[in-house]
Amino acid sequence: MQFDRKLQLATDLYQFTMGNVYVQDGKENEEAVFDVFIRNNPFEGGYTVVAGLEQVIEYVNGIRFTKEDTALLKKNHPEFSPAFLAYLENFKFEGEIFAIPEGSIIFPMEPIIRVKAPLIQAQIVETTILSIVNHQTLIATKASRIIEEARGDVVMEFGLRRAHGTEAGYYGARAAVIGGCAGTSVVETEAMLDRPAMGTMSHSFILSYDTELEAFEKYVKYNPDNATLLVDTYNTLEKGVPNAIKVFKKALAEGAITGRYGIRIDSGDLAYFSIEARKMLDEAGLQDAGIVASSDLDEHLIKDLKSQGAKINSWGVGTKLITAYDCPALGGVYKLSVISGKSKLKVSNDPEKITNPGYKKIFRIYGKSNGMALADLITLEDETINEAEPLTIFHPVHTWKKRIITDYYIRELLIPVFIDGKCVYQSPTISEIQQHLKDEKDSLWPAFKRMVNPHVYHVDLSENLWTLKQQLLSEAE
Amino acid sequence: MQFDRKLQLATDLYQFTMGNVYVQDGKENEEAVFDVFIRNNPFEGGYTVVAGLEQVIEYVNGIRFTKEDTALLKKNHPEFSPAFLAYLENFKFEGEIFAIPEGSIIFPMEPIIRVKAPLIQAQIVETTILSIVNHQTLIATKASRIIEEARGDVVMEFGLRRAHGTEAGYYGARAAVIGGCAGTSVVETEAMLDRPAMGTMSHSFILSYDTELEAFEKYVKYNPDNATLLVDTYNTLEKGVPNAIKVFKKALAEGAITGRYGIRIDSGDLAYFSIEARKMLDEAGLQDAGIVASSDLDEHLIKDLKSQGAKINSWGVGTKLITAYDCPALGGVYKLSVISGKSKLKVSNDPEKITNPGYKKIFRIYGKSNGMALADLITLEDETINEAEPLTIFHPVHTWKKRIITDYYIRELLIPVFIDGKCVYQSPTISEIQQHLKDEKDSLWPAFKRMVNPHVYHVDLSENLWTLKQQLLSEAE
Repeated sequence: MQFDRKLQLATDLYQFTMGNVYVQDGKENEEAVFDVFIRNNPFEGGYTVVAGLEQVIEYVNGIRFTKEDTALLKKNHPEFSPAFLAYLENFKFEGEIFAIPEGSIIFPMEPIIRVKAPLIQAQIVETTILSIVNHQTLIATKASRIIEEARGDVVMEFGLRRAHGTEAGYYGARAAVIGGCAGTSVVETEAMLDRPAMGTMSHSFILSYDTELEAFEKYVKYNPDNATLLVDTYNTLEKGVPNAIKVFKKALAEGAITGRYGIRIDSGDLAYFSIEARKMLDEAGLQDAGIVASSDLDEHLIKDLKSQGAKINSWGVGTKLITAYDCPALGGVYKLSVISGKSKLKVSNDPEKITNPGYKKIFRIYGKSNGMALADLITLEDETINEAEPLTIFHPVHTWKKRIITDYYIRELLIPVFIDGKCVYQSPTISEIQQHLKDEKDSLWPAFKRMVNPHVYHVDLSENLWTLKQQLLSEAE
Repeated sequence: MQFDRKLQLATDLYQFTMGNVYVQDGKENEEAVFDVFIRNNPFEGGYTVVAGLEQVIEYVNGIRFTKEDTALLKKNHPEFSPAFLAYLENFKFEGEIFAIPEGSIIFPMEPIIRVKAPLIQAQIVETTILSIVNHQTLIATKASRIIEEARGDVVMEFGLRRAHGTEAGYYGARAAVIGGCAGTSVVETEAMLDRPAMGTMSHSFILSYDTELEAFEKYVKYNPDNATLLVDTYNTLEKGVPNAIKVFKKALAEGAITGRYGIRIDSGDLAYFSIEARKMLDEAGLQDAGIVASSDLDEHLIKDLKSQGAKINSWGVGTKLITAYDCPALGGVYKLSVISGKSKLKVSNDPEKITNPGYKKIFRIYGKSNGMALADLITLEDETINEAEPLTIFHPVHTWKKRIITDYYIRELLIPVFIDGKCVYQSPTISEIQQHLKDEKDSLWPAFKRMVNPHVYHVDLSENLWTLKQQLLSEAE
């Protein structure tokens, strides 16, 4: 371990500044409820894939402040009272956390994590939770969009060198796999994801030999089970592919290839090169040879290449995925909704920024006949829905837009993760999370999943919640 | 420490796949030279600020593979030979690294890190070095652009919650400070940056009290040295600013404010609100009250707000800085330039992607009269420049474009960091790096620093290097 970090301090100073006031003002134990939610789907998409909960749990379970931490805080912040520093030294999260499991599909305004805890505790965990969840949710959603356009092809995550540091590459790879990638090049993930990392060779490997042919021969010799040759170092169609064919034919004749084999194209016109390379490979009798493409790929380029008839079997996606290039930040926020039993909302001149008050939960409503998601309903925690009766939901702004739903069943999205400071949730394996996302996507009509101008999924408020919100808005005016 | 990571494995699998071939093929100790360089300045800017070297040094110094690491690799990769795994278990970086110090201004095609080492060692460190340097260099450059447009105002980094995970927030904050930010909200950086973190309060603090006035009173009471009040929770000009004025006047009269004080505006029309708030504060005799703005700020918005006469003294910059929102990846690459004494280049159909061969160094040429940077010259390592004589440089593509430089002095940019595997460089303090960047920027004409359509700084090749490159290109054809 080279980078020794203190995650308990991976937070904004203002959490401590406020905590210091709360302790001195005797407010630290007032019970607070905060919701984590997004205001918009990223990438102008129709849905969002939530990820990062396992790391949130590790963080919340592990948060402790050492004497060394408080000594540094004391030195740098003379305003911090002895009582506050003592509070930190005895800090342990004692609250409740409900969350929507990783790999779930969620929509704007839905509480994806709900924290109920003594005010100071709920406040202190804000930034770290947001940083983890915003990052992984963003990358998982991007990956899911790419998987959608790859239409069943294998997609591999190759972006570590362009990630925002090595940790962003590590957890970004995790999120990419949750989103549907078959794997990642990041070796460090092997223990976490319980699957081998993936990769081929770099141009420097080819250049380190006198000839491309020799480099290919040596690579195949020592990688008989997975011999993917990078063919664009000198000239893709005139040198790389012919050299690869020569090496493959000889090795196959000798029984020296015992697994997958193929080529990787990393530059140039991927449509033209892959079509021509496919022809050359097929004419040489190498129908089994795969073609991997990489080179600034994203869902738009993959869709475009497919529409041009590109002959690509698998996709190595790097920069655009690991940085979520076209929307590199998810705007997840953490907003107070209840304090000491009083429901709260944040008013704003911008109606989009007004929050939903109260201690809330979410129901997803499915059609009984086909299991497809029909709408989500955010309610107050004490509300129930009688599935035997028709359910009337209405648009939270244009309230005259009503829908009466029959023949449905419901599922609660928020599940218990911490109760009285104790973790009561066992994170699923990465494969289980991947499968959960597949199931979630299967229950979502294609109109919500399409890349451009997706249909807007209905997320409505129960009448009780809507009334509470209107009441608080009037009071605030 | 909650997130226990293995940085030696924070790399792409293909580094090991190639290493495995090298060991079995007896090539692992061939001497290789690799250059880290960028092909374009990010943000369509005219320069780049290099950062991350201190973390590269920590990584290279610390890289070791445990038996646990090799056991996992063996399990997941049956193609890895016992000889290769044994090599890893005894791995120690034994090579040479030269680098351009952090906070330096660099330009495309310049080797910012040059690694000369046994091939397998130089290869294994590739991805991690790129991941660190690409990230910090990107954020430092973005910060420098923001600082440029803030024209002397204080800029604070507030973006952790939108960073790509907590480590991206931590090292991103470091890079932001290198780029010129006065500080960051990230508490975890206090030890690393040797300066207190910064911050104010959140909307939830205000909402946790029955009234905004009470929240303000309590905040000022416990923060007499730095009382910045967030005024946009209910209504900035009708409630927030009048309440802040009331609290400030009372506290000042009582001598209960002993340091800085002011307001923070986090939403709405920052130009209008700040101008009106300034008037209200001034009319109340609070000329000393500062105005902090935050809300999706970047260099473009800051310039625009200033052109509208916004009355803002300091700027809290978050999402757009910490994610480098408009250009969230730096395309730094790591290319082989020499193997076993033979110079190498990577050819490409795209002339921009052709690399510079050879074991190289860089001179920056300054005008003697004013100390301003005139051009950079990349040469082979054994070349010298006689400052007493005029220097003729020429454009590397349009070679008829010549410049004869007189009355100049030179500075070599690459300095030794590792020699024979031993670190010979002591990283400067963060304040020294900040100062170095200021000096670097002072030596750069404004035309290279402007936000839009900057002038292109000349980076030329020596005649020897240019000739070597042409020769290798001809051979490759």
